[in-house]
Amino acid sequence: MKVDGVSFRSLAESAGGRSLVVVDQTRLPTAFERVELASLEAVAGAISRMVVRGAPLIGVTAAYGVALALRSHPDDAGLDAATRTLVGTRPTAVNLRWAVERVRRAVAPLPASERAGAAWALAGQMAEEDVAACQAIGRHGAALLRERFPDREGRPLQVLTHCNAGWLATVDWGTALAPVYRLHDDGVPVHVWVSETRPRNQGLLTAWELGRHGVPFTLVVDNAAAHLLGTGRVDCCLVGADRITGQGDVCNKIGTALKARASCAAGVPFFVAAPCSTIDWQLADPDAVPIEERASAEVTADPSLPVFNPGFDVTPAELVDRLVTERGVVAATAAGLAGLREGRP
Amino acid sequence: MKVDGVSFRSLAESAGGRSLVVVDQTRLPTAFERVELASLEAVAGAISRMVVRGAPLIGVTAAYGVALALRSHPDDAGLDAATRTLVGTRPTAVNLRWAVERVRRAVAPLPASERAGAAWALAGQMAEEDVAACQAIGRHGAALLRERFPDREGRPLQVLTHCNAGWLATVDWGTALAPVYRLHDDGVPVHVWVSETRPRNQGLLTAWELGRHGVPFTLVVDNAAAHLLGTGRVDCCLVGADRITGQGDVCNKIGTALKARASCAAGVPFFVAAPCSTIDWQLADPDAVPIEERASAEVTADPSLPVFNPGFDVTPAELVDRLVTERGVVAATAAGLAGLREGRP
Repeated sequence: MKVDGVSFRSLAESAGGRSLVVVDQTRLPTAFERVELASLEAVAGAISRMVVRGAPLIGVTAAYGVALALRSHPDDAGLDAATRTLVGTRPTAVNLRWAVERVRRAVAPLPASERAGAAWALAGQMAEEDVAACQAIGRHGAALLRERFPDREGRPLQVLTHCNAGWLATVDWGTALAPVYRLHDDGVPVHVWVSETRPRNQGLLTAWELGRHGVPFTLVVDNAAAHLLGTGRVDCCLVGADRITGQGDVCNKIGTALKARASCAAGVPFFVAAPCSTIDWQLADPDAVPIEERASAEVTADPSLPVFNPGFDVTPAELVDRLVTERGVVAATAAGLAGLREGRP
Repeated sequence: MKVDGVSFRSLAESAGGRSLVVVDQTRLPTAFERVELASLEAVAGAISRMVVRGAPLIGVTAAYGVALALRSHPDDAGLDAATRTLVGTRPTAVNLRWAVERVRRAVAPLPASERAGAAWALAGQMAEEDVAACQAIGRHGAALLRERFPDREGRPLQVLTHCNAGWLATVDWGTALAPVYRLHDDGVPVHVWVSETRPRNQGLLTAWELGRHGVPFTLVVDNAAAHLLGTGRVDCCLVGADRITGQGDVCNKIGTALKARASCAAGVPFFVAAPCSTIDWQLADPDAVPIEERASAEVTADPSLPVFNPGFDVTPAELVDRLVTERGVVAATAAGLAGLREGRP
């Protein structure tokens, strides 16, 4: 995506493939800086401190992390340790587990001397696949929005989003924001209501990337959602996901479920965009999604205050109008998802 | 209420009645300071800058503001100007209009020379009435909670609140927090989930006053409400109100309606506590409640970001389980409210 006219990705290999270079998302929107990750420890630290964040992006980053780990410890014990360390950094997003397991399965049969190189190459392939998946989500999502809102008479399509599910959360394009960028680049007027997303304010990342790309937006506090939805200011909600159950329940950044309820009550469609790697096929029970609890310092600088800081919530499938994936748009039901599994939505 | 064992009110007359002394709520929780208001301009500024805030408290403060204005301009023009200035400071809370109009009606028939004194005395009476009303809300609300949750077997009653509807928002005791203080002081274990309440973080005021009084609480971000409610962590929601329509729709701090929806979906009762002065008898249409829009600087320090910052939202009456007033507990319906109007709930 473009930052003031120049194309960027959230993640790149350094020259010669020595290390991984990522945008430091803890510094945004104050500063746009990139940081080099050259070891398993650096990658794991970057994921847990949310230097890199967003379910698809942490998956690809972790794949590179396995490759970096194998350079110094290419035996089975090293592979196991790297897998454990990386999967443990963030418990909720299933893409992380999916990506790390995919690399492990691919390199485990290889001689130790070939593992690091094969893992690095696979991570690179997964990065390209992520870009292609997000582009496809953009195409399918844009087609859905054009179909649902055919006659705008010049009025911008009003989209409410939550957290950051843009290009910063993926390798490029984003999930929820990919259809927005697609429509905008095709000349369709779009305006995005950007929710602050406490406690970590990822809405400011969304505002930053929309602004740099030239997409009109307005920042609101998370609390404003029911008022926006209830006063006709929103045509649809469009968010990403960290884990989708086999029944279509959507685990995403804390606060998503509040927006979904208000959206449903206002008769506004609630769409979720995510790659198929976000679907946890084994999981049917939404209560079984592990909800990461994060540090109280994210909420308040006063360590004397008792704080509870869950990072995610689960939106029941019945509140989700459609799931937008790289394989197409489906209903948030077991039947809808089953079609995706076979590759035919 | 008690601050570390010492009794305080949010508002007091200075010695000799020269001025009004209020807690500066913009300095809390960092510092507990009091500030003197000795003119109409000082009172209007304190209300609009939210040095004093909370629907009942701004009503009483504004009543004192009329009295202070009449000391220098006791004629009809002065009375009109003071009324206009004060009512214009915050458009949503109806208690403000109610209090100012009550003083105006009381002093308008008097000779100019008697108006300031009569207004000051009436404001003092209204302060005492507010304390009595909040105490009654505490009694009625505590009885409601004991009745609804009779058998706790030692487990604390789990209350989720929003914004600050405690003693800082009234002259003393609070509205939503009055039943909590009542139960706590009666030895019933209560734990309060305190919502941060962006953009102005009035949840920190709630945390501060609960902590100083010794009531256990946990601070959460506003986004956490659906997760708390959906995972069985909350027995009831209890919030204040800035304006209640004649049908029982509740206008309160932005974000309240999101909690009400999630509460309803989780089967958790949603209670609203407010004095009868919060009821706008003339207003039937919830869409007609004027929603104050506040400065973007409340949301972000970056003036380049486009911001929409509505201060309130409206919770439809059907989501409200009961209204708790100083005259008793009623259904949030026209019939329920009608009983209050006649003084017989």
